[in-house]
This record gives sequence, C-alpha cells and structure tokens, in this order.
Amino acid sequence: MDYIFSDKIASLKPSAIREIFKSLTDPSVISFAAGNPAPESFPVTELSELSARLFAEEAATALQYGITEGYTPLREAVAVRQKDKFDIGGAGESTLIVSGGQQGIELTCKVLCNEGDVVLCEDPSFIGALNSFRSNGSKLVGVPMEADGICVDALEKALRTTPHVKLLYLIPTFQNPTGITMSLEKRKAVLQLAKQYGVMILEDNPYGELRFAGRDIPTLKSMGTDGQVIYCSSFSKILSAGMRVGFVIAPEEIAKKMTVAKQGEDVHTNLFFQMLCYRYMTEYDLDGHIAAINDLYRRKCALMLSCIDRYIPQDIATFTRPEGGLFIWGTLTGRTDSSDFVQGALSQKVAVVPGSAFLCDTAATSPSFRLNYSTPTDEQIEEGVRRLGKVCRSL
Amino acid sequence: MDYIFSDKIASLKPSAIREIFKSLTDPSVISFAAGNPAPESFPVTELSELSARLFAEEAATALQYGITEGYTPLREAVAVRQKDKFDIGGAGESTLIVSGGQQGIELTCKVLCNEGDVVLCEDPSFIGALNSFRSNGSKLVGVPMEADGICVDALEKALRTTPHVKLLYLIPTFQNPTGITMSLEKRKAVLQLAKQYGVMILEDNPYGELRFAGRDIPTLKSMGTDGQVIYCSSFSKILSAGMRVGFVIAPEEIAKKMTVAKQGEDVHTNLFFQMLCYRYMTEYDLDGHIAAINDLYRRKCALMLSCIDRYIPQDIATFTRPEGGLFIWGTLTGRTDSSDFVQGALSQKVAVVPGSAFLCDTAATSPSFRLNYSTPTDEQIEEGVRRLGKVCRSL
Repeated sequence: MDYIFSDKIASLKPSAIREIFKSLTDPSVISFAAGNPAPESFPVTELSELSARLFAEEAATALQYGITEGYTPLREAVAVRQKDKFDIGGAGESTLIVSGGQQGIELTCKVLCNEGDVVLCEDPSFIGALNSFRSNGSKLVGVPMEADGICVDALEKALRTTPHVKLLYLIPTFQNPTGITMSLEKRKAVLQLAKQYGVMILEDNPYGELRFAGRDIPTLKSMGTDGQVIYCSSFSKILSAGMRVGFVIAPEEIAKKMTVAKQGEDVHTNLFFQMLCYRYMTEYDLDGHIAAINDLYRRKCALMLSCIDRYIPQDIATFTRPEGGLFIWGTLTGRTDSSDFVQGALSQKVAVVPGSAFLCDTAATSPSFRLNYSTPTDEQIEEGVRRLGKVCRSL
Repeated sequence: MDYIFSDKIASLKPSAIREIFKSLTDPSVISFAAGNPAPESFPVTELSELSARLFAEEAATALQYGITEGYTPLREAVAVRQKDKFDIGGAGESTLIVSGGQQGIELTCKVLCNEGDVVLCEDPSFIGALNSFRSNGSKLVGVPMEADGICVDALEKALRTTPHVKLLYLIPTFQNPTGITMSLEKRKAVLQLAKQYGVMILEDNPYGELRFAGRDIPTLKSMGTDGQVIYCSSFSKILSAGMRVGFVIAPEEIAKKMTVAKQGEDVHTNLFFQMLCYRYMTEYDLDGHIAAINDLYRRKCALMLSCIDRYIPQDIATFTRPEGGLFIWGTLTGRTDSSDFVQGALSQKVAVVPGSAFLCDTAATSPSFRLNYSTPTDEQIEEGVRRLGKVCRSL
C-alpha cells in the first residue's frame, strides 16, 4: 500500500548519525560518536535505595496518573535550585517537568511556530533539536559559530533579512557539537537583538552544570528580564539519561500552552522517576555528585586533548578546548568536507560524527567532526586518537 | 509581553475536565470523574522486586540512553503477545514502544496529517485524543455513536462529503467515554468503507484486555489485511498508568516515520520501566494478573449498575451496560444538555464528566455524562449514585 505522509514528516531524512550508530554494534569499534553521559555518572546505589523506599512508601501515587505539569515537589525543588544556581525563574515564571530536554525543545517549537516559520540556529547545532524543528514543519536558517559563540553580525543580518523568524535556538554553554561557550559580551548582544526584532529565544542548557574549568557565565535566561527567554534543561547528564526527565522554565503564559501541548503528547512524564529525582535532590548531595562527574570529565577531556596533541599534527586539524560538557570539535585544515576522514576513521574502527550531520542545510558539507570523551575508556581514548592521527596523515 | 502562539495551539482551550479535576482536591468529593485504573491493579510487590533486581543486574543499561524504537526484548514480547491474543502483527508490521498510548495517537496524527486535514472521530470520543489532533492542527469531524458502535451510515456520508479526510480514529472496544463495543458486523463495514475511501484507521485499544463479560470481538487490525490499520495500546490499565509505557503496531513504513517523529519528541520512552515491563511479562503471570483486575472491575461495574437501578428512575436517565473497560455512560431523557445535572452533582459533592467534554464540536451540548467505577470505593459508589439519584429527581 502507498502511504501519504504529512509534508513535514515526508521530507525528513534518517540522520547520518543513525548510520554511524549501526556500526557501533561491532564491539571492536572505538566510539567517540556517542552523546551519552559516562555510565559512572549514574548514582546507581542511591537510586536503587530510593526506589525501594518509593515502592514501599508511595507506590500508589508513583504508579498512577499524575498531572501534566509534573510532580509538584519536584517542580518546586527544580525552581529553587535553578534560582539559586543560575538566578533563573521567579515571579511570572513557571516550571514544567518534561520527558527529557528534547520534549522541552519540541514543545517550544510546537506552541510558537506555524509550519513554514523560521527557527534560527547556531550552525552547527544539536541534531535532535534540528530534527524536532523539522518534524514540526519549521524552516531552519543557520548562523555560523565562532570561537566565542554565534557570529553576532551574521545573526543581525539573518534577523534583518529573513521573513517569519519566530524563534532563536541557542546552546550558549558547552555547545553540542562544538563544546564552545558563548562570551558574556555576545550574550548581551544576542539578547539585545532578540528584543529589537521581537524574536523568542530558546536557551538549551543540558550541559550547564558540567563545568570542569573556568567560571560560570550568566545564562541568557538570568539576563533577560522581559520574558523573552524559554529555558530548557534536564537531569540526563547528571542523574540518568534513560529515565527521560527534563524541565522547562518559561513565562507562565507560555508554560500553560506547553502544558496543553504536552498533555496531547504523553499526558505526563514517568511519575516514578520524577519522584526519584525529587528524593535524590532532597535526600542526597546532588552538588557533590555533580562535582564528582566533573572531576571525571575534566580528566577525560584533558586525556583526549593530550592524545590529540601527541598524535594529530597541528597543521592537519585544529580542536576546541572546552571548559565543560561532553564534546570536542575537530576541524580539518584546508578542507571543506570531513567525509573521507570519517570514513577513514571507520575503516580503522573508530567512530566519529561528521560535522555535516549538525548543519541546518542537510546538503552542505563540513570540514569538522565531533569527538565525545565521556563514554570511552582511557585506553580507548588513547588508542582511538592514535588511529585518528594515522587517518589524518593518510588524507 | 504579548506572546503570539502557533495557530494550532492558540485556538486550543483548556478542557472542561480540568476544571472538574480542580474540585477533586476537596477530599469530601466522591469522584466518578477519573479515567484512572484502580490502585489495586498495580502489582506493587512484583514491580518492586523486579526493580531491585534491575538495579542490581542492569543499571548501566537501564539508566543510559536507549534506542527510539524501544527496548528490543520488550518490542518482541509485545509483538508475540499481541499476535497470540489478538492475531495482530506479523510480516511487514513493526512494534514501536511509545510513552503511553497517548503518544501513539499523537504520532499517528503527526506523520499522516497536514494542518487542516480532517480526522473523523466517534462522537463522543476520548478527549485526550481529540486535543492531541487539535494541537496538531487537524480538524475534527464527529460521527455519532449507536448502541453497537459508530453509525455506519453517518460514517459513509462523512467520508463521501468531507474533503481532506486523512484518518479515522476509533476505540472499538469498551469505548471511552461510552463503554460501547462495536459489533463485528460494523467492524467489517467500517473496514470496507476505509478501504473504499482510502482512509487510514487508528484503532485505539487501551481497554481491550479488560473484558469481564461476553466474548472478544476481533480487533480491526486483525481483520484488515491491507495495512490500513495502525494499532495502539498500552500497559497503563494493566500494570501502571504513571510509568507511561504504551505501544504501536503499524506497517513498517509508517512505524519508521513515527520513529523519526518520536525521536524529535522524547528520544525514547523511560528505559528502566520498559525493562520492568519486559521482566514482568516474562517472569510473572500477566494473564493471571489481568484476570484479577477483571474480577475487580466486574464486581465494581455490577455494583454501580445495581445502585443506578436502585436510585435513578429509568424514565429520567438511561445507562450503557459495558462488558469491560472503566466507564458507564449516562444519558438524561428528553434533554439536550447535562450541565445542570453535572453542576447539581458537584453541589452534592459528586464529580462526573459532562458529555460535552467528549464532543468534536466544543460548542455543542450533550444530554450525557461519564461515570467511572474503577477508582471509587464500594461505599463511594453506593453513596455517590444515591446522591446522583437525588440530583436527577430535582431536575
């Protein structure tokens, strides 16, 4: 039978990343392709203990339908923590629990954008967000990245010349895929432009707590006093990715619309794990746990960078040096396309993600590639980067 | 700040049900308004035991990112069970784990319908589905219900006269809100019409296993050999509603598109609970557990019906007599609107849902109301129906 799909879905292509992930079923492949947190970052013993008590004490609540906005004690705990840590939220703002940060991104687009409206994105950007915008029928327009974040001149031009821009999607801190953090100066300029052109900002901050070097820069949400910023984050990188618990902090009026849309998508987020998150936040030391994760990632990132310095000649490729998050971004010198490199790496049994996968224009090429240091072992990092060096020299 | 929402979301109104649910925070109100399974239907001891073992044996998998299609062993177990029980699936069909049946409904609409396309629905129908279609920009056209299911003549006329019909949404077994089950004859006629007019069917079957009287009637999916039926169900009514685990069985090509759309919504469904469901299905007696739930609901439904017979004069209101599911549907005789009755009930501290909440046309009135018997206690059923009788006589 011939099926006719909706226009927005019919035009979606399976991502290049999925093809690479297929190769990962081969256990001899060293993967730098994941976006996963380290398995050591899950507080298994504590979650297991809390889970046993939750079954014993509140099973009838945890297994029953809950309200769409989320488990009230968790919403309150998240609001307090985000206020304390990032000066986010407060009067007129509402906290909504969502099924991973991904759902916060999707709901933002759904409530704000008609089909054909434009979402401006950092280029490259998080592929999951790009595909979510595409699957809602939005058009993507990319704005190039620089070493200190989005190119403000190009953003200004895009805002000035592109019709129907509805949303500006940004990952200002430890960006996926580049690891780049936007400077304070640029954050101010971006907010000013968004205000001037009447465009909403979606600030995606899943890695914000994963700082292992340098100093926090204020979030856009904490600097925008006019309700122009929707803030999205999650517990995926600090407690568990598989549980799918994230949150949105947004002006009340927007949060209400997102709640109606969320009700139509999944009624509410897994309630048992919402309650587990709440118990973990109030009964254990979340800050201490995050500090331990950051010790691990600081070490792993430094190891990967030192291997890069050792094995990959500086004139062949350059790399970002992130102060947090999960990713290093490599760029081949004097090239426009990293496909040969990525294929060469795969033939050496090392998986990296080609930069083109993260671009707004699916037909464009990129001289870059993404490396993840949170999931491979130390031995894999050393051996994998050694092989990448070999591939580089053979190009 | 004035926010401009997408057309599809801006026009969505908060549902009447939500207003009624607010009154439920008053513990002295007897609620027949819920759609919740009985708390006794959750196998708490077993899930707790399985959870402890899952943390001990597979925590690193259960807490990490999973694949969008769902946990493979669960997909396979669901496919086998649905084949055994309902003769559903097989060659060319794919099973997708979703975040509750609600997500299966939403994804179906998203992948098939452009904004403005029409979804034909039983009228009345499940409000969560109606709002999901609305939030995707679909137009709803209702087809009246009869005692043995959708009115086939009206369906034929709707298909013949309505432009851009893309999807026919049906809950053939123990329908929400009416409790009505579509006859075999009508199922055949509906399939024939869908084929004739080239319209896809979404068969929503969350209550199918909750039969406590009479005999199973084949699902539409098992009768449609041409891949015209997308089948959606869940574990919400047989294991836990709060965990949000459901499934879709659909032709492979459609399941692939739904997978891409799901990836943009929540990446995947809570993996820990997917693994719990799998373990429960393979290590415990799911059929025995469901039989116990049905013993409970048979008794509760019979109790409510006997109280209705005792307290509510037959000439004032009539009621459906379901063979399964969670709901009884009452209709006031000689009236077009149940609002006064619903308000009167609330003033007597009994919550029921007005029939108008379930209609495709949000401005229409209904002489009906929905009663739930799975959540109130026996004492509440007796006392609540007694009060409803009082309200009926005062109309």
